[in-house]
Amino acid sequence: MSQLDAVLGRIDSDLDKSLERLFALLRIQSISTDPVYKKFCREAAEFVATDLNSIGFSAELRPTAGHPIVVGKPSNGAASQRSKSGPPHVLFYGHYDVQPVDPLNLWTAPPFEPKIDTLPDGRKIIVARGACDDKGQAMTFIEPCRAYKAVTGKLPLPITMMIEGEEECGSKNLFGFVRDNADEFKLDLALVCDTAMWDQNTPAITSSLRGLVYEEVKLTCADRDLHSGLFGGAAQNPIRVLSKILAALHDENGRVTIPGFYDGVKDLPPDIKEELKALNLTAENFLGQVGLKEPAGEKGRMLIEMVTTRPTAEINGIVGGYTGEGAKTVLPAKAAAKVSFRLVGDQDPLKVRNAFRAFVKERLPVDCTVEFENFSDARALQLPFDSPALAKTRAALKDEWGKTAVTVGAGGSIPIVNDFKSVLGMDSIMVGFALDDDRVHSPNEKFDLKSFHKGIRSWARILDALSA
Amino acid sequence: MSQLDAVLGRIDSDLDKSLERLFALLRIQSISTDPVYKKFCREAAEFVATDLNSIGFSAELRPTAGHPIVVGKPSNGAASQRSKSGPPHVLFYGHYDVQPVDPLNLWTAPPFEPKIDTLPDGRKIIVARGACDDKGQAMTFIEPCRAYKAVTGKLPLPITMMIEGEEECGSKNLFGFVRDNADEFKLDLALVCDTAMWDQNTPAITSSLRGLVYEEVKLTCADRDLHSGLFGGAAQNPIRVLSKILAALHDENGRVTIPGFYDGVKDLPPDIKEELKALNLTAENFLGQVGLKEPAGEKGRMLIEMVTTRPTAEINGIVGGYTGEGAKTVLPAKAAAKVSFRLVGDQDPLKVRNAFRAFVKERLPVDCTVEFENFSDARALQLPFDSPALAKTRAALKDEWGKTAVTVGAGGSIPIVNDFKSVLGMDSIMVGFALDDDRVHSPNEKFDLKSFHKGIRSWARILDALSA
Repeated sequence: MSQLDAVLGRIDSDLDKSLERLFALLRIQSISTDPVYKKFCREAAEFVATDLNSIGFSAELRPTAGHPIVVGKPSNGAASQRSKSGPPHVLFYGHYDVQPVDPLNLWTAPPFEPKIDTLPDGRKIIVARGACDDKGQAMTFIEPCRAYKAVTGKLPLPITMMIEGEEECGSKNLFGFVRDNADEFKLDLALVCDTAMWDQNTPAITSSLRGLVYEEVKLTCADRDLHSGLFGGAAQNPIRVLSKILAALHDENGRVTIPGFYDGVKDLPPDIKEELKALNLTAENFLGQVGLKEPAGEKGRMLIEMVTTRPTAEINGIVGGYTGEGAKTVLPAKAAAKVSFRLVGDQDPLKVRNAFRAFVKERLPVDCTVEFENFSDARALQLPFDSPALAKTRAALKDEWGKTAVTVGAGGSIPIVNDFKSVLGMDSIMVGFALDDDRVHSPNEKFDLKSFHKGIRSWARILDALSA
Repeated sequence: MSQLDAVLGRIDSDLDKSLERLFALLRIQSISTDPVYKKFCREAAEFVATDLNSIGFSAELRPTAGHPIVVGKPSNGAASQRSKSGPPHVLFYGHYDVQPVDPLNLWTAPPFEPKIDTLPDGRKIIVARGACDDKGQAMTFIEPCRAYKAVTGKLPLPITMMIEGEEECGSKNLFGFVRDNADEFKLDLALVCDTAMWDQNTPAITSSLRGLVYEEVKLTCADRDLHSGLFGGAAQNPIRVLSKILAALHDENGRVTIPGFYDGVKDLPPDIKEELKALNLTAENFLGQVGLKEPAGEKGRMLIEMVTTRPTAEINGIVGGYTGEGAKTVLPAKAAAKVSFRLVGDQDPLKVRNAFRAFVKERLPVDCTVEFENFSDARALQLPFDSPALAKTRAALKDEWGKTAVTVGAGGSIPIVNDFKSVLGMDSIMVGFALDDDRVHSPNEKFDLKSFHKGIRSWARILDALSA
């Protein structure tokens, strides 16, 4: 029996105890956004550190201005640095904090009393806040480490753990921590377990993340709100100006009209495009789940391109004038919108931001001034399609699931992964076992028992593959 | 000495006592919008009724579901009906309620402790909530009645008073009251004192009111708010749809593009147009006061046309998605706007409403549904330019002020005046003495002593002219 088979066997036989450990972690109410739960966040961090110390790590709580970060290094003395030869030194990133639980009345059972349920289709599920995001997913990485330690006495390759406690409130102290301690974490490769499967039977590797430019546009016309009976027809209306600007953002084919917006956007390699096509993501399946029928993006593009590999311009919010019940004949002085751009490839966030601002300014009439505020300027990330680690991960996942892993782009951003690249010079491979129906961030969050079990086995295989 | 001269003399010699009476009324905190002040509204109504009973009226409080309406009829037994011959039976409309006083900290003196102040330019002003709107203006009509009674023993023509207590909260019980008691109030002409002068030295008669169609448009795309990272680029965005619709409402010349919108809009008679032109309302004077420079309405039209005699489409409010501080990458399910149309001439409110709704529906993509809510459907009103009462009123005002009164259209609507026409078949002449700097509805509301004094004299002259 190979070492891997022994580890997998150990994982199978230890599953009940793995669940017990996960349940113990799930019982800790580590809601990071609410200061009331601060002590529980610390308790969860200590739980994780203690656990890591028992399975071959030297772990400690690193303080921040907010909740502590659990850092675990190889206890066998492997240097905190890149491997000169031999297997890579990997950094695992996850988080022990969870989302708030409101509205509590929509939960069918207390959110911090984990239990196993069975769905009508027979699937067994773990129900609790954090069951999936990210306690359950993080444990799919910690459990195979435990199994390696039990079976072989050591980890199969150098691993540094970074389990933070503020992911659900924007990782606001993690960025500075990584920058301030860059030398400790400049390793060979980051592994992240916070993403989803393609479907119940098809694993997925997230190899690209769209970037994000997020702007607020605030228009002002008159120096006060006016009465539309008195000034209507003569005074400039900022909602009208804003509507015209926002309406001009896309042409009739759904393309963004900002000059230079598509600079740096490349078409996908034909084989990747074919692979995406083969996934056959239909409007019925993808949009149908939220009551929609027809893709509203760029004409001539596949739906899966629209949501993963193409850049977008989206209006996230708008407000101006009277928005309460009934009627008020105000001609407002101000109107504002939040507009965000998902970036791909080599799009330059700063160029996009400036081009957008110029686009707005060009369309301002006399009597209308603008202020901008920026909330995000993140580049897109793309793991090289020919990365050896990517190939190994794909092979390992195929061994476990019997199906080739889909390589997808994530529509959203995971900002810390950007910093792993820009600050630490390190690529990330994101593999996760969440499913679309996991109700992450919502009441009755769950994680399939199969996702948990085969997730652990998947990481055991990936670690084995990467160590070779 | 003519009877009118005697009355005017009496008004001048009685001015101090007129002010005392106004101050007594101003001290009553008759804020109609806040139930806490209910007893003060009743107190104000009783004050007015008692006063009317002392000067030749038979007045009483008529109950409504809200605050009472003071109705005063000629105590000499003149029938509640139109005059068959002789002078017209006029209905005077005013209101005893006032706006709330918040923010109280911006008042330089307590709002219900009226006082006389002097402005830097030497103008004497009455400062208090209601000093102008409408207690001060209503008293400019009641005081000449008192003077006629004192000098001649009777009113110069049959007058019915209707002083309501809910104007500041939408006159919501007055409409039903007028409908239910139409026979009592179907008189010859309504006189209203709730409007403004052209400037400090030029009286104005408001002879037209723009109508108002007020619609709320509510768009829905997905059946829930979406994450823009996951669905952005593929799911229809209702803010984008709404922006495109609102941006299409006006063409590049500022004309409303809704088919049929201008049906029933006539150009002004050349003489009226010349008169408006002679007023020379400049952008600097009119828009400059609110920090604007350039008229934003229909190209080729005078500014005064834009705000009084031309129809408009105005966006009064818009809301959708995330509007709080910072950034949220939501792709919202819903967006809504409030859109209103000022109508003139014979524009049909129902046709405008339906044409607008069709305009919106035509522009809805697949995956976007709309709901409408209507808050106003009022026609425009136009006093015939050749009305004899209008000519008499103009002559009376010229006698008092030494300048020809300007005949203006009001940009806003006074809904009850519409009902006087549609329910009672009665034209209204609106004459008022407010000035642009009266801070109506704002802290430190004032009424010029000159407006009060010459306002009283003006109505004395108008009543004399109408009685001839």
